[in-house]
Amino acid sequence: MSRNFKSDNVSAVSDPIMAAIIAANAGSAAAYGGDDLTQKLQSVASEVFGREVAVFPVTTGTAANALALSQLVPPYGAVYCHEAAHIVTDECGAPEFFTGGAKMIGLPAADGKITPAQVADAVEFALDMGVHHVKPAAVSLSQATEWGTVYTLHEVSALAAAAGKRGLPVHMDGARFANALAHLGCTAAEATWRSGVDVLSLGATKNGALCAEAVVFFEPERARDFERRRKQSGHLWSKLRFVSAQLLAYFADGLWLDNARHANAMASALARGLREIAGASLLQSVDANELFVALPEAVVVSLESQGFGFYRWPLCACPAGVAIRLVTSYATTPAQVQEFLAAARSAARG
Amino acid sequence: MSRNFKSDNVSAVSDPIMAAIIAANAGSAAAYGGDDLTQKLQSVASEVFGREVAVFPVTTGTAANALALSQLVPPYGAVYCHEAAHIVTDECGAPEFFTGGAKMIGLPAADGKITPAQVADAVEFALDMGVHHVKPAAVSLSQATEWGTVYTLHEVSALAAAAGKRGLPVHMDGARFANALAHLGCTAAEATWRSGVDVLSLGATKNGALCAEAVVFFEPERARDFERRRKQSGHLWSKLRFVSAQLLAYFADGLWLDNARHANAMASALARGLREIAGASLLQSVDANELFVALPEAVVVSLESQGFGFYRWPLCACPAGVAIRLVTSYATTPAQVQEFLAAARSAARG
Amino acid sequence: MSRNFKSDNVSAVSDPIMAAIIAANAGSAAAYGGDDLTQKLQSVASEVFGREVAVFPVTTGTAANALALSQLVPPYGAVYCHEAAHIVTDECGAPEFFTGGAKMIGLPAADGKITPAQVADAVEFALDMGVHHVKPAAVSLSQATEWGTVYTLHEVSALAAAAGKRGLPVHMDGARFANALAHLGCTAAEATWRSGVDVLSLGATKNGALCAEAVVFFEPERARDFERRRKQSGHLWSKLRFVSAQLLAYFADGLWLDNARHANAMASALARGLREIAGASLLQSVDANELFVALPEAVVVSLESQGFGFYRWPLCACPAGVAIRLVTSYATTPAQVQEFLAAARSAARG
Amino acid sequence: MSRNFKSDNVSAVSDPIMAAIIAANAGSAAAYGGDDLTQKLQSVASEVFGREVAVFPVTTGTAANALALSQLVPPYGAVYCHEAAHIVTDECGAPEFFTGGAKMIGLPAADGKITPAQVADAVEFALDMGVHHVKPAAVSLSQATEWGTVYTLHEVSALAAAAGKRGLPVHMDGARFANALAHLGCTAAEATWRSGVDVLSLGATKNGALCAEAVVFFEPERARDFERRRKQSGHLWSKLRFVSAQLLAYFADGLWLDNARHANAMASALARGLREIAGASLLQSVDANELFVALPEAVVVSLESQGFGFYRWPLCACPAGVAIRLVTSYATTPAQVQEFLAAARSAARG
Repeated sequence: MSRNFKSDNVSAVSDPIMAAIIAANAGSAAAYGGDDLTQKLQSVASEVFGREVAVFPVTTGTAANALALSQLVPPYGAVYCHEAAHIVTDECGAPEFFTGGAKMIGLPAADGKITPAQVADAVEFALDMGVHHVKPAAVSLSQATEWGTVYTLHEVSALAAAAGKRGLPVHMDGARFANALAHLGCTAAEATWRSGVDVLSLGATKNGALCAEAVVFFEPERARDFERRRKQSGHLWSKLRFVSAQLLAYFADGLWLDNARHANAMASALARGLREIAGASLLQSVDANELFVALPEAVVVSLESQGFGFYRWPLCACPAGVAIRLVTSYATTPAQVQEFLAAARSAARG
Repeated sequence: MSRNFKSDNVSAVSDPIMAAIIAANAGSAAAYGGDDLTQKLQSVASEVFGREVAVFPVTTGTAANALALSQLVPPYGAVYCHEAAHIVTDECGAPEFFTGGAKMIGLPAADGKITPAQVADAVEFALDMGVHHVKPAAVSLSQATEWGTVYTLHEVSALAAAAGKRGLPVHMDGARFANALAHLGCTAAEATWRSGVDVLSLGATKNGALCAEAVVFFEPERARDFERRRKQSGHLWSKLRFVSAQLLAYFADGLWLDNARHANAMASALARGLREIAGASLLQSVDANELFVALPEAVVVSLESQGFGFYRWPLCACPAGVAIRLVTSYATTPAQVQEFLAAARSAARG
Repeated sequence: MSRNFKSDNVSAVSDPIMAAIIAANAGSAAAYGGDDLTQKLQSVASEVFGREVAVFPVTTGTAANALALSQLVPPYGAVYCHEAAHIVTDECGAPEFFTGGAKMIGLPAADGKITPAQVADAVEFALDMGVHHVKPAAVSLSQATEWGTVYTLHEVSALAAAAGKRGLPVHMDGARFANALAHLGCTAAEATWRSGVDVLSLGATKNGALCAEAVVFFEPERARDFERRRKQSGHLWSKLRFVSAQLLAYFADGLWLDNARHANAMASALARGLREIAGASLLQSVDANELFVALPEAVVVSLESQGFGFYRWPLCACPAGVAIRLVTSYATTPAQVQEFLAAARSAARG
Repeated sequence: MSRNFKSDNVSAVSDPIMAAIIAANAGSAAAYGGDDLTQKLQSVASEVFGREVAVFPVTTGTAANALALSQLVPPYGAVYCHEAAHIVTDECGAPEFFTGGAKMIGLPAADGKITPAQVADAVEFALDMGVHHVKPAAVSLSQATEWGTVYTLHEVSALAAAAGKRGLPVHMDGARFANALAHLGCTAAEATWRSGVDVLSLGATKNGALCAEAVVFFEPERARDFERRRKQSGHLWSKLRFVSAQLLAYFADGLWLDNARHANAMASALARGLREIAGASLLQSVDANELFVALPEAVVVSLESQGFGFYRWPLCACPAGVAIRLVTSYATTPAQVQEFLAAARSAARG
C-alpha cells in the first residue's frame, strides 16, 4: 500500500527493530521484566535523557497516556489539554477509566498548542468553583501536537512554569516525540525535563517499532507503585524482553532520530509540493510528519479514487475546500511523495 | 439571612415536609425501603406522572444524576449535554466516576438549551471516529436549565426525537423540575415521558425538602438492578422512610407546584424591578427561579457590601458590567425582593 | 412493631436528635457545610475524641466505610478484614467501587476478631507474590464486630501494631462504635487513636439518629481532598446542617453512650434469659447489642409464627439447632425483652 | 537457562510463530485490526471451534480475563471461581478494576476444581442477602486449573449447568487451554461451548507465542461493544496484524496441540521420575504441564543451590516437606527433565 498516507502506524517494522526482536529470542529468560534487556533499558534510557529515569515499557499509546495520567491525577482531578488531544478524542475514555473519573478539559487552540494563559484561566475557574468542580491536577501537552506543529522549547517551558506555579505536574504525550525532537534539534533532556516535563509517554510504534511505547518518569520517585498500575491494567507482559528489545534498538545508533528525520523530510517535501498547487493551502505549519491541507473537493475525490490513502479531517478549521490529513513515516519514500504530488497537481489542473 | 439569594438550597425546610418527617417517626419500621411510606411512594409517583414509574429516593442531586447516567451509559459512552450542565461543571466528576469512565460532552448554547442539530453533529463526529472515540450513549438536558430558562415542550420533544433516532436515551436533570413545570403549566407526564424523556432526576431539596431527590424511570424495566447501584454507591438509606415521607409530602396537595410557583413569581418580580434600573440588563429569559443580570460593578459592590448574598457568575456571557446570579425559593418573600430592588435602585442612582 | 429484633436500624429517631433537626430549621443557612452547625461539629468531635480531628458527616455506613477506604487504599490495594465484615458481605461491592478496584481480603475468625498473626501471614503472602498480587494497603476492623463481640483495647492495639509495622493504616468500622465504647468503659480516644486507629467510620443511625454517620480522621492531614471524594460520590449534602445537627445532639449530654448502654443492657437481659432456656445456646459472647443464639428449630418456628422479627443467620457457625440473630437498640424496652423470653421459654417447653 | 522450571512463560518463541511475525512485516497494512490477518483470524478461529465465534486478540492473560469478565459482569456483580484462581490472586485486582467493582468470590477446592454444589450454595447465600450483597453474575473456571489438574468434560458441563440454571454465564480462563485440550483429547468445541462455556480467555504466550492471547465469544452477540472495552483499556494495537499472525501460526498445522502435548509429556516424565524418589510425593494429579510435589526440605535446598529454577508454593496444601511447583513447556527437553530428576534423586539419597 505505497499510497497510504493515513497514518504512520500503517508502516512495517523498521529492520533493526525486527532484528532485535529476533535476537531477543535466544532461549528462556526471566518473565515480567526480570530479564536482562529490560534491566539494560533502564540505563540506556537514563543515558538518552541525561538523568536517571524510571522507564516502563508498554505496547500502546493509549496505555502509556492513561497509565501516566492515572499516576498523576486523582479520580476527582482535572487534566488541562488541547481540545483535540488524543486523550480527549481518540482514546475512548481511557484516561477517565484509568484515573477512576478524572476530567480531560479540552482547551481550544488553532495551532494545537495550549498556552499558559489558558491554563491559568481554567485553573482559576476551577478554584472559584471549589469542591463542586474537579480539582486541577495536571497539564498534558502533545509533542508533536495533533495538528502537526511542535511546541518550541520556550513554549514548553512557559506552559510548565504556569503548571508548576499551580502545583500541577506536566505530562507530555510523545506519540510522535522523536519527530518533534528531530524538528527541535535539541537534546531529549532539553525537550523534556529541562523544560519542565515530569512524565513522558514515549512512542516508538509510529516510528518503526512493532509495539513499543514507554512511560518515562523523570523523577523516579514519582513512579512509586506504577508497576502495579501496569499490572492491574493488564499491561505487564510476561515476555517483556521483546518490548524492551525494541526500545533498545530504537535508541541504538540514533535509529529513532534517523527515522523521525526521514519522516519529517518527507512531510516537508509534500508541503513544498502542495504549496505550489493552485487551490491548495496548508492549514498548519508542517513541523513534524503530519500535514493538514485544504484542497478543492474535486482534487480530494480524484486522489481518493486513485487509491491514495488519507483521512478527511473535519476537526481542522478549514475556510475553503476540504481539509485532509497526510502522514508520512520512516518508510515513506521520495517516490511515493512525488507520486502523490503528481496526482494532486494533475487533479488540480482539472 | 433574609438577604440570601445565593441559591435555593440555602432555604429552610417547608413546613408540611418537616411535619411529614416528624410523623414518619412513629415506632419502628422495616429498613432499606421495605417500609410502608416507600411502598406508597411508588403508587403516588405513578399517579403524579400518569403512568407506572419506578422511583428511587436518594438525597443529593449529584447522586441522582450520576446514578441515573450510570444506569444508561457504559464506561466507554458519551453523554451529550450543555457545556454548563451540572454534570459537567458542578459534580466533581461524579458522572465519570459512577459510569466508570464515560465522557460528558458539553455543547455550547447561549440560552442553556442544546439543540437537535448539535446532538446530530456530535453523534456524527463520534461515529466517524469509530472505536477510538467514546460511543454515543445518552442525551442529558437540564430542566429548568442552568441559565434559568425552560425548554418548551416542543424543544424537549425535538431533542428527544433526535436522540431517539440515534438510539440514545434521554435523561433530564430536574433539580428544578417543579419550577420548570410551574412555568410550562402542563402535566408532569407531558413534561417528561410524553415528550420523550426516559429518566428524570427529580429534585425536591431546592424546593423545600430537607434532603429528597429521586431517580424516576418511566419504563420500569430500565431500572433493572438499579437498586444495587444505589446500594453500591452508599445511597441506600436504612431509614429510607424519612426520605420517602418528604417526597410524599412534596407531592401532596400540590405543595411542589405551589412552592415552585411562588419561587418563580419572586424571580419574575425581581426581573420586573431590575428591568427598570438604569444600567441593569437581564442576560437570560427569566422562566423559572434564577436570574442572570448584568449590573454596573459599583452596584454589585454596593449590594455585596450591604450583605446581599449572590454569586458573581463569570460563566455567563456578559457584554458589559458584572454578571450576577440571583436565585429565589419557595421561602423568598415579597419584602425581601423589594428590599433587594430598593438597594439596587439606590446604588444605581449613585 | 415492638417485636422487631431484626436490626437496630428499624428503630425510630431518638427524641433529642429529632428535636435538633427541628431546631436546625430556623431560616436559611449556608449550603454544603458552610453552616454554623457543621463548623461547630469539628470542635465538638475534637473534644469528644481528645484531639483535633477532621470529621466528615455522611448519611450511610456504606458511604462512610467506602469513602474512608478510598482515601487510604489505592486501586491495586488489599484491605485485610474479617470474612464477615460489612465491607466484604454487606455493601454490594462499595469498597471495590469507591477504591477503583481494591480487594477486601476476608480472614476467618470464629469470634469476629482478626488477629495480628493473620495480618502478618496475609501480608507475607502478598509480598511473596509481588506485583501480581494486590498491595497490602490497610487493615479494617469492625468494633463492635459482626458477631456482637468487642475487641479489647489490647486486641486493638496489637492489631494496629501489626498493621503499623507493615506500613498499613488502620480503619475501624464503627457502625456500632458507641455500643463498643459503652462496653469497654474507656474514653473515645483510648478506643481509637490511642490504640492505633487512623480512621473511624462512626455510626449514629443504628443508635438513634435519623441519618448520621461520619468519617473521622485522627490525623487531619490524612483527610486531604477527602471533601472532593465525598462530593464526587454524591455524599455532600446541600443542607448539611441537618446531619451535623444530629451528630451534635448525639454527642450532647452523653446521649450516644446512654443510648448504647441501654441497648447493651437489653442485649444482656436477653442473653441472661436465653441461657436458662433448655436447648438454647449462645454462640458468641454478648458484648454489645447483638446476640447470636442457637435454638431448636421448633422454637424458632414458633417465635416466627408469633410475629417476632429476627434473622436466621446461617453465616454463624452453629453446631446444633438453628442460629438466629437478635439485635436490641436504644428503643428496646425491658417489656419487649421479657415478652420475647416468655415466648421462647414457652416454645422450648413445647 | 535450561534448568528453569519456573513457568512456561520463560520460554522463547516457537519457530513457526516467529516466522509468522516476520512474514507479517511485508509493507504497510491497515491499523487497528483492519488488516487481512486479523480478518482471517475470525474465520480460522471459527473453524477451530466449530462454530462462528467472535475473537479479539490481546497480549496478556490478565487483559483477556479482565476484559472478558467486564463484558459479562456489572460493577455490583459476583464472580464465583476457585480461591487460587489467577483472577483472585495473580492479577493485582484487574478484574475488580475492569468491572468497576465486582467481587471475585474464591471457593476452596483441594484439586483446583470448583463444584456445582459450591456454586449453588454461594448463589443461595447471595440471594438471601439481597441488595446488600453483590449480585451473582458469572462463574469462572481455569482450564487447566491452577493446580495442574484438568476438569473432565463432564465436570465442565455440570458446572455450566449449575451456572446456567441460575442465569450465570461461564467464563473459562484458558491460559493453558491447549494443555488441557491435549489432555482431554476432545475437540475445542467439546471442551468449550458444547460443554456450556460462553467466553474463553485463550492463552498462547505460555505455549510458544511471543505475546498472543485472545478473548473468544461463542455467541458473537455477547461481544457487543467489546472492541470499545479493548480500546478503552489500551489493549487495541495499531499494528494488530502482528498478534493475529501469531494466533494464525498457533492454530496452523496443529502447532498449539503439538506444543501442548510435548509440554504435557515432559510433565508426565517428571512425575514418573519423582514418584520413584524417596520422600517425594505428588500433591496433585499431573494432567497438564504443571506439577506440585512435596520434597524434603534438604532436597529442595540442594536443587535450588544447583540453579534449578522453580517456586516454593505455600498455597498448596502439603502435609510434609516443602511444596514446589514445576512447569514444563513446549521447549522443555527430555534431557532437561532427566537432569532435574538425576539431581533430585541424588539429593534424596543424601
